[in-house]
Amino acid sequence: MARIVKKFGGTSVATMERIAHVAGRVKASVDAGDEVVVVVSAMAGTTNQLVAWTREAGALHDAREYDAVVAAGEQITAGLMAIALQNLGVEARSWLGWQLGLHTDDVHGSARILAIDTDKLDARLAQGQVAVVAGFQGLGADARITTLGRGGSDTSAVALAAALGAVRCDIFTDVDGVYTADPRMVPHARKLSQITLEEMLELASGGAKVLQTRAVAMAMRYGVKLQVLTSFEDVPGTMLIEEKGLIEEKGVIEEKGDMEQNVINGIAYSDDEAKITLVAIDDAPGVAATLFGALADAHINVDMIVQTAASAPGKTDITFSLPRSDLARGLEVIGAIGDGITYQEILTAADVCKISVVGVAMRSQPGVAKLMFETLAEKGINIEVISTSEIKISVLIGTAYKELAVRSLHTAFGLDAECGD
Amino acid sequence: MARIVKKFGGTSVATMERIAHVAGRVKASVDAGDEVVVVVSAMAGTTNQLVAWTREAGALHDAREYDAVVAAGEQITAGLMAIALQNLGVEARSWLGWQLGLHTDDVHGSARILAIDTDKLDARLAQGQVAVVAGFQGLGADARITTLGRGGSDTSAVALAAALGAVRCDIFTDVDGVYTADPRMVPHARKLSQITLEEMLELASGGAKVLQTRAVAMAMRYGVKLQVLTSFEDVPGTMLIEEKGLIEEKGVIEEKGDMEQNVINGIAYSDDEAKITLVAIDDAPGVAATLFGALADAHINVDMIVQTAASAPGKTDITFSLPRSDLARGLEVIGAIGDGITYQEILTAADVCKISVVGVAMRSQPGVAKLMFETLAEKGINIEVISTSEIKISVLIGTAYKELAVRSLHTAFGLDAECGD
Repeated sequence: MARIVKKFGGTSVATMERIAHVAGRVKASVDAGDEVVVVVSAMAGTTNQLVAWTREAGALHDAREYDAVVAAGEQITAGLMAIALQNLGVEARSWLGWQLGLHTDDVHGSARILAIDTDKLDARLAQGQVAVVAGFQGLGADARITTLGRGGSDTSAVALAAALGAVRCDIFTDVDGVYTADPRMVPHARKLSQITLEEMLELASGGAKVLQTRAVAMAMRYGVKLQVLTSFEDVPGTMLIEEKGLIEEKGVIEEKGDMEQNVINGIAYSDDEAKITLVAIDDAPGVAATLFGALADAHINVDMIVQTAASAPGKTDITFSLPRSDLARGLEVIGAIGDGITYQEILTAADVCKISVVGVAMRSQPGVAKLMFETLAEKGINIEVISTSEIKISVLIGTAYKELAVRSLHTAFGLDAECGD
Repeated sequence: MARIVKKFGGTSVATMERIAHVAGRVKASVDAGDEVVVVVSAMAGTTNQLVAWTREAGALHDAREYDAVVAAGEQITAGLMAIALQNLGVEARSWLGWQLGLHTDDVHGSARILAIDTDKLDARLAQGQVAVVAGFQGLGADARITTLGRGGSDTSAVALAAALGAVRCDIFTDVDGVYTADPRMVPHARKLSQITLEEMLELASGGAKVLQTRAVAMAMRYGVKLQVLTSFEDVPGTMLIEEKGLIEEKGVIEEKGDMEQNVINGIAYSDDEAKITLVAIDDAPGVAATLFGALADAHINVDMIVQTAASAPGKTDITFSLPRSDLARGLEVIGAIGDGITYQEILTAADVCKISVVGVAMRSQPGVAKLMFETLAEKGINIEVISTSEIKISVLIGTAYKELAVRSLHTAFGLDAECGD
């Protein structure tokens, strides 16, 4: 008897037909002897409508009231799913954040989970009752409803899987797994049968939208086994595994010729980037600390940074990327530093995007950066900023080259599916 | 400083513009120094949508899940109203049933209020904060969300007014007060400036839809002063007063020539009626008890009953009315009594309606029944069943005569507004 958490996103519960379909899948799992916790998102479109209403209600935005309004979406789906399950003869009840005891801090709108009471759920699961949990919501330290931020239902599901000691957490979404690249952009993209959590984390933070970064990080921390799959078809998805698991199963993988032959497992892109360059800034100690300290204080998330020698002696150029939506505010912050830093000129670009190649095998196989840069150079694509981690290389390039870059890299790293695949 | 409960129905909060408008009215009350509790319904249409979804989700209907789904409507409005008030500079927060401590029994779908914790609300009101309470919902004895039945927000409002010792409970709806008859049917219907709670109770149970019967009964029990008015115009509504109050203010009323000249204060109709006649039933002790006992056990609400002598000796005819939706089930129940009762024939009619005339002055003024019956006879309308209370006379007639009967009685009892009124 396996305990499994199954999370269904907004498109999987978008209509009553979809909810009935999902209930059928859950029943199959129950009939197979599983103890099932279902985590549901709001029906597709509902959250956007509720968010729009809170904005219309007033420019001043009380995040506590925002949470009370927006959490209603998941509440509705949870009740409907419980009824749909009962109608298939499956014992089920809905649980809201405050009923469950899913405790969070009181940072409304993007609360963090502190603890989950599991006694009640444990008892009901042992009795064979399916728990239908409203995702995305919790009970704040202030005894009010909190929400976990957009996409927070993934985090709810992983947290429940960790707290309840589930053997697996299935994330049902509108794509049937994790691909080597966005299939809408790269027709030859291949679905991966396995990927490590670390790779997924780098892909998610690089722009891939399959899973919330925070949920992946939590899965790594608590050793939750994740699977990404679709509720629309009955096909295998992608297993997210710990690297340890990968090494242990290496023999199998080599035989299957699956992961080991790929140095790179995925290519991600992020559109929402902008670039700021400070030309001929004083090359003195403390300048970078002043600049990036001021931006951090303003909660502006600086991503990639490069520093290059400027033409004048004792001067340097600093270029960094930041979310496009923060560009105007970033310039204000820099302007407000005043005498703290001096520079000759400030250049900005909002038409840049980030391309990342990710793979754990990169650690043991040199030459990834070389192949990446050569491939882009061959296509005449200028690299503006580079950053690397142990298992990822990211570059900032002009947005116009996005598709060309992703497709060329996909081919160059041997990721293209064979014809008819 | 007066403490006032203001309840806004679904049409008053149907759009973001309406919510902003209501917030403006609440602000005016706060600016005038009132302590205000706002009770909100779901946005018009929302509850119907949610109810429809629960039905679509499955024929088997878990009332606990129904409540979880449907209560989300009021939760959404409460949060939005709080934001709208804050944006006008009014301190406000939303309260859900479980946050407030509005305790009910656990009869889901039509729960009864057991107690309301007032400590938190008292403290916040004293600090000048407006409490925006989600109507229609409570916290069941089973620690789950309950709802109070359709129209239950009126009951929430009256219960809060009683618990908080409010000087008045304003019920804002889409009509601007209580009329002598349905203005859609009787163009000359007049708005009443005052009506007694007893009359309102009889009108409501007679089919008038301005206020939930249960809310009126609760207002009588706890001496809550009610006002019915509209949020769409700034015009006076109708005050619901205790009869004691009416007598005390008699001098004023006579001067105004308002209530005292009307023997009848309102005419109500109810469409949803059916009639069953058992012809030539044994006229023996216990027959009526057997018949109506069986119907009561099946939760069929028998309204009007008449017993008349039948042609055969030792036999009688019994006719009674019941909700039209219960007609088929009522016949089943009677059939299942078997040997318990014998009768010659069973007749049914589903095309009947109930017309009620209501007025407290009826007690002291004879001749109301005579005028009513004469008026209907003049128009050739056959009365099928009659029932009376101290302040109400109801008749069952053919549905085809409904409008004719209401308009004729409205004129006959001198209720028609003068031209240009």
